[in-house]
This record gives sequence, structure tokens and C-alpha cells, in this order.
Amino acid sequence: MVAPLPGLPDSVTIWEVGPRDGLQNESTAIPTEIKTEFIRRLVAAGLRIVEATSFVRPDWVPQLADAADVVALLPREPGRRFPVLVPNLRGLLAAREAGAGEVAVFASATETFARRNLNRGLGEQMAMFAPVIDSARADGMPVRGYVSMCFGDPWEGAVPRPQVVQVCRDLISAGCTALSLGDTIGVATPGHVAALIGDLVAAGIPVADIGVHFHDTYGQALANTVAALQQGITTVDASAGGLGGCPYARSATGNLATEDLVWMLDGLGIDTGVDLRALVAASAWLAGVLGRPSPSRVVRALSAAQDTQ
Amino acid sequence: MVAPLPGLPDSVTIWEVGPRDGLQNESTAIPTEIKTEFIRRLVAAGLRIVEATSFVRPDWVPQLADAADVVALLPREPGRRFPVLVPNLRGLLAAREAGAGEVAVFASATETFARRNLNRGLGEQMAMFAPVIDSARADGMPVRGYVSMCFGDPWEGAVPRPQVVQVCRDLISAGCTALSLGDTIGVATPGHVAALIGDLVAAGIPVADIGVHFHDTYGQALANTVAALQQGITTVDASAGGLGGCPYARSATGNLATEDLVWMLDGLGIDTGVDLRALVAASAWLAGVLGRPSPSRVVRALSAAQDTQ
Repeated sequence: MVAPLPGLPDSVTIWEVGPRDGLQNESTAIPTEIKTEFIRRLVAAGLRIVEATSFVRPDWVPQLADAADVVALLPREPGRRFPVLVPNLRGLLAAREAGAGEVAVFASATETFARRNLNRGLGEQMAMFAPVIDSARADGMPVRGYVSMCFGDPWEGAVPRPQVVQVCRDLISAGCTALSLGDTIGVATPGHVAALIGDLVAAGIPVADIGVHFHDTYGQALANTVAALQQGITTVDASAGGLGGCPYARSATGNLATEDLVWMLDGLGIDTGVDLRALVAASAWLAGVLGRPSPSRVVRALSAAQDTQ
Repeated sequence: MVAPLPGLPDSVTIWEVGPRDGLQNESTAIPTEIKTEFIRRLVAAGLRIVEATSFVRPDWVPQLADAADVVALLPREPGRRFPVLVPNLRGLLAAREAGAGEVAVFASATETFARRNLNRGLGEQMAMFAPVIDSARADGMPVRGYVSMCFGDPWEGAVPRPQVVQVCRDLISAGCTALSLGDTIGVATPGHVAALIGDLVAAGIPVADIGVHFHDTYGQALANTVAALQQGITTVDASAGGLGGCPYARSATGNLATEDLVWMLDGLGIDTGVDLRALVAASAWLAGVLGRPSPSRVVRALSAAQDTQ
């Protein structure tokens, strides 16, 4: 039954991260044709933005060594966007050469994670991103700034909101066209989400430029999404089938599953352009390829219902 | 980090259903001493209301044949309540004889489920409950009315809200002191939840008498809980460790896990009286006894974190 909730938007843009964030965490490399077939099925299901891959050093992340091939094989159709992650200028050049039209950089909201993930301090990460953002923007490319550990950090605990606001302001000042607030370890709760978004808007960052990226490690992702939508957010990251997640938490659950998100938004009468049955079929197909059940509750429930028919 | 969300209550009463709703679905009977030890650990973790068992016919549900023994062994302490489910007058008499001080009846919001579960039509179920409720109230016992299939029904699809309101009004008129709105198959979304609660309040049922009982089959339980709290609900059903669920859905996920609920309420600064670590330890202990991992995301995440320390 469709029943709207007052104060929520009419439509939401889903920023699908499964092919990049999900498959980069697989222990064995997925063949390129499986990756691109997965992306084709996601696009056919109605997803308009699909983060396709990451141009990281292949000796560091061999699962993504085929980034240029994936980009070359993307189903380019009007109104579809395929951003790619670029860690540095070298990655940007490779992405551009492969034909990517849109990129994202990956910043940290905490000192410890910046040092561990970027080998730089919190105050020094912008020096690494600035030339990447400048160069991409000079070519007319949109640049999204991911901010990880926005709510909690496994080493530092709760993250002070002003610290997150500062990193977000720095990214926007440097030229990022959009942000994604990551709850990388999944510890956030709805009041914390609402408060941080309120702080960012108060700091002058347009809410239309802010996306949210929740992990379901503690089961909070959809409750946090409702709180974000009530604050005016209209871009929500999700991963088809619940693929991927944080390598720092041993729990099986990671990214918010796109299907669980679409089930909720469909019920709320919020348009996403996504056909849930086609999306579930795409994730069930990939789960079969990977040889294990999807962590998405909707994929499991609908697949079980189909089995009994 | 504790960050409140405007419009939410300062405290929430958790109606713990794990020992009854969870363990009744186990394929093998759990020894009585395990059940009562589980209840003792839940009470020690701070849960104030623990639904202990059900006085159904032992030839129908052999897992609950020890209902009287469970009641006899309850840890009776001031401020703790141990309601039991009674399907009929015979069950009420047995519950009373065993020393139960509080009961619940189990109604349906749909014709099909009433016929399948109660062997009676929607309009006839009240004739079965009325003498139970009368007799319990005459003895000064509170009586909770569960209403199943309040949002969707596997045979009938979406359930019309006026039909649910009618069943709820009938239960209150018959003398029920509280209600629990069950999303038995887990299909509800937050707007539907808010709309139904709004209808019930408009029909004159005090919001303080209404509890919500969500299943996580489609991952919606916590998002629905936020919507319910925003409508003024202060009683939320949950099952320690995510035990149990709907026998009609083959998916592994059933009841909202108490730990996932407490994680959210702790983060929102909403008092429950529950010590999350003690609760997780109780559920992890039972998962060990049952020989399978808990479906609760919080139990899995915190147990994994502990394993790595």
C-alpha cells in the first residue's frame, strides 16, 4: 500500500554503488564481463546513476585492475551517469583516458582514518585532492566528494560534528559539486543524522548537494535514511543486493541494500525510476554468480516467495 | 553519540516477546530451564515486560507444553511484568492457575487469517475473545489485544485501514487494556504506519494504549518504528536476538531484534532501562544454545567486535 509521510520528497535519486563499492571487496576478482553485465542489468532496472569502478593502483586493489575495460563497456544511454572513483591525479588521468565523464574523491572525516587510508593527516588530505578536483572541473566533469567516518570511527569513537562540517566545507570550496556523508562503520542513529545535516545546511552547503551513505552493520540504515529525507536530502547511496561494506567490521552486513531502500520508497510513494522486481532479479543473478545468498532482506524475502510459487 | 530527534518521546517501553514469540517457532522443544534462564538474563539486562509463554493446546504447539512450569519459575521482582498469551477460556484458566498476572489475546485484522489461524470469520472472532477478556478483567488482569496482519496479508494483499480500526475498536470495547499492531509479514512502510496510527487516534483510541509489533522481513522494522514514535507511540514490541517471526514467510528474518531497537533508542537518548551489552550477552548465550548465529545485526556486530579484541 502506498502511503506518503508528510515532509518527504516526491522523488529520490539513488546513487548505486554496488559495482564499485561492492565488488571491490570480493576476495576473488570478478570477470569484467560479469561486472558489465551486472551494470547493464542495473541500468535496465531503472537505476540512473551507477558508480562503475575505481581507478586505484592495480597492485593495491587487483579486483579493480580492469577499470578501463569496465568503462569502455558501459551501456551509454541518455540520462544515465557512471561516475568512477579516483584516488589521485594519476587515477583521474587514467579515468579520463578510458572515457569516464564523472569522478569522485574519497576523503576522511577523522585523523586516524585519513592516516590509515590516505597516508596523510586530516589537514593534509585536501592538498592531495585539490589538483584532482581542479583538473576534473577544468574538463567539465562533476566531482563528488565522499566523506568517510562522518558519525563514528573505529579508533576515535564518536566524531565531532564541527570536524565533519569543516571537511565538507573544504571539499565544496575546492570545487566538489556534491558530497556523500558516509557512516562507514554503520553506528549512526537518526538524531545524529538529522543534526549533522542541519549543521551542514547552516554552514551554507545546499542540501541538494548532499547525499547520504549508510551502512546496515547495526541495522540502522533505513531509519537513518528516513531522518535524512525529513531534513531535505534527496540523494541516497545504496548497493544492489547489499553488496560490499566496510572491511574494518567483521560483520557480514555492509552497505544499505538498494532493494530495501526501494521497497521503503515505493511504499512511501516516492519516485526512484527503479523497477523493484527487475532489480531483485539482477541481484539474485549476481548472488548466483558469487555463490552465496544476498544480504538484502528484500532480495531474500522475494526470492523465497518466488521459490514457493 | 547521543543526539535526540525532535518530536520523539523521552522513554520507550519495550515489550519483549522473544521467549514466547521466538521460542514457539523453534522446531525442537527448548528445555524449560533454558527458557527460564533466558528470561532471567533478559530481566537482569533491564527488560521490564517479558512475554513469557503461551497457554495453547500442547498437542498443537508441543514447544509450549511447559507453559505452567515456565510461569512457576519466573523471576518475580517489583516492576517486572510477565504477560502470557491465551487463545481461549481454557487457556486463561490454565494461565490463572499457574499464577500468571496478565494475559494477551491474538486477533486478526483480516478474514483469511482469522479463518486460518482461529477457524472463525473476522466478524466472529470477538465472540471467542469476549468471555476471555471479561473473565480476566473481572480478576483484575490487564489484557492486551494483538492484532495481526494490520498492514498486509499474504492472501489478501494490502489491508484497508478502516478494517483494522474496526477490529481495534472492538477489542477496546470488549475490555482490552492495550493493543499491539502487528505487521506480521513485514511489508509495512513508514507512511502506512503513521496513517494507521493517525486513524486509530482519530477513532478515539488513546495512543498510550497502542503498541507496535514490526517484522524485519523486508528490512523496514526500525524505519517504521521511527514513524510510530513520531506519532506518539511509546510501546514497541521486539524480540531479543531477533528470535522468531512469521511461519508464513520462508525468509530467515522475523521479529525486530531488541538489540537493534535499543541501539537506535540509546543513540536517540530515549530511555528504555535496558543495558545493551547485557542484552547482547543474553542473546549470544541463547544463540550458542540453539547452535546458530543470531539474526540481530547488533548482536552479530558486537559479537564480532568482541572476537577481535
